[in-house]
Amino acid sequence: MFIYEHHLRVRYGDTDRMGYVYYGNYGYYYEQARSEAIRHSGVTYKEIEDSGTMMPITRMTTKYIQPALYDELLTIRTIIPAMPGRIVTFQYEVFNENKVLINEGETQLIFIDVITKKIKTVPSILVEKLKPFF
Amino acid sequence: MFIYEHHLRVRYGDTDRMGYVYYGNYGYYYEQARSEAIRHSGVTYKEIEDSGTMMPITRMTTKYIQPALYDELLTIRTIIPAMPGRIVTFQYEVFNENKVLINEGETQLIFIDVITKKIKTVPSILVEKLKPFF
Amino acid sequence: MFIYEHHLRVRYGDTDRMGYVYYGNYGYYYEQARSEAIRHSGVTYKEIEDSGTMMPITRMTTKYIQPALYDELLTIRTIIPAMPGRIVTFQYEVFNENKVLINEGETQLIFIDVITKKIKTVPSILVEKLKPFF
Amino acid sequence: MFIYEHHLRVRYGDTDRMGYVYYGNYGYYYEQARSEAIRHSGVTYKEIEDSGTMMPITRMTTKYIQPALYDELLTIRTIIPAMPGRIVTFQYEVFNENKVLINEGETQLIFIDVITKKIKTVPSILVEKLKPFF
Repeated sequence: MFIYEHHLRVRYGDTDRMGYVYYGNYGYYYEQARSEAIRHSGVTYKEIEDSGTMMPITRMTTKYIQPALYDELLTIRTIIPAMPGRIVTFQYEVFNENKVLINEGETQLIFIDVITKKIKTVPSILVEKLKPFF
Repeated sequence: MFIYEHHLRVRYGDTDRMGYVYYGNYGYYYEQARSEAIRHSGVTYKEIEDSGTMMPITRMTTKYIQPALYDELLTIRTIIPAMPGRIVTFQYEVFNENKVLINEGETQLIFIDVITKKIKTVPSILVEKLKPFF
Repeated sequence: MFIYEHHLRVRYGDTDRMGYVYYGNYGYYYEQARSEAIRHSGVTYKEIEDSGTMMPITRMTTKYIQPALYDELLTIRTIIPAMPGRIVTFQYEVFNENKVLINEGETQLIFIDVITKKIKTVPSILVEKLKPFF
Repeated sequence: MFIYEHHLRVRYGDTDRMGYVYYGNYGYYYEQARSEAIRHSGVTYKEIEDSGTMMPITRMTTKYIQPALYDELLTIRTIIPAMPGRIVTFQYEVFNENKVLINEGETQLIFIDVITKKIKTVPSILVEKLKPFF
């Protein structure tokens, strides 16, 4: 299992007139967390894409438990529960400053060849970095 | 069952460097579709909120089937499959200009009293408008 | 002079906790208005880009006069004050439902060859459509 | 003069199909930089707002010099050139990883009483923190 915690600050523009982070912004937050998690493994998502593999999202689920508020420093725990194969699953747990779990999510990504646009399996550039964790 | 179809144009700013609509923007699209669906029933979400009931989202699921492209005029079919009670479910089917289903989603919303922030059941202002459909 | 009016609805996600449209969203609104203005001239921005010319923005100014509110149907008047040459200027006037001018803006765009990334002058595909207005 | 440098990472969702940061996202970037600059002075924008003063933006200008790219770690230098009075001006200089100035901007904000919605002068909570710099 691979776990990484990323911290991000809620922007004014992320809130809506309810005073909470707009529900549609969590996909952006998950991306930031996922991106930093991958970077922490030793390769960046940009390097994966530049080496010929795009990773489009095929599914996302989000559970909104409590609102996130302006200027809060959120902690997003990103979990890769299983070694990627044809797909890779990322799970997210979002905590507020009081360490309360306020949001949970999951995304499923696939691997696509940048040139042929065909589905492929996880590229070796990512396998190498993740192998030690599984 | 309540069904409504809304059309929206993909903005340049909605795309990402993959050339597709960024996955994180579908929550915004669902909101637009949901909002117009409610308006079509004869009341606006704003009127519901102004009359004392907020409707925060508690769950969202999204299935990304095919990418949406810049400048496409998407059709979003919004479905309320059952009469709202303590929760209301909205389902979304997104079609591109070729009438291909490219994205499916679902959101679950609850009803919260604007003043007390307590959970309540569906307000009568919405019940009245939806009753004929169920 | 070329003038076109576009209508757009303020989304919930466009507002911030002040209850107003977040100041950072007007660039998106201008793009929607500009894009529909160009389409109205008889060519789409997508067609211009597909024919080999990108039009990146080089300057934007915005004057915020009054707030825009959730669910308001805004009218954005887009003006091209002069025939484009090496640059094209778009001016924007945003009106709320009470026909009050609430926001003014201007963007300056240049023309870039998609392949060589070199600056060029306005492509003929756009010149043809705009000539009748000047 | 008050100066502060903030670093932020370009998100995938911030880019558009041109492969660059979408021009409409710089207002968000400026907010992040401005917010961290204020925090660095010893008070947070949230504390200012909670103590009764909103700071809506009245003008923004942006000059786009070079594109910002996905995953770049940008440096945003925020400058308050003069002691705030009835207005406060923030200037922004955005540098990419090669220390190239890629974007410049300025925002003008005013002070509004949260309750009365009337214009006021800079609140003492902010004056105290900024005085040493002027």
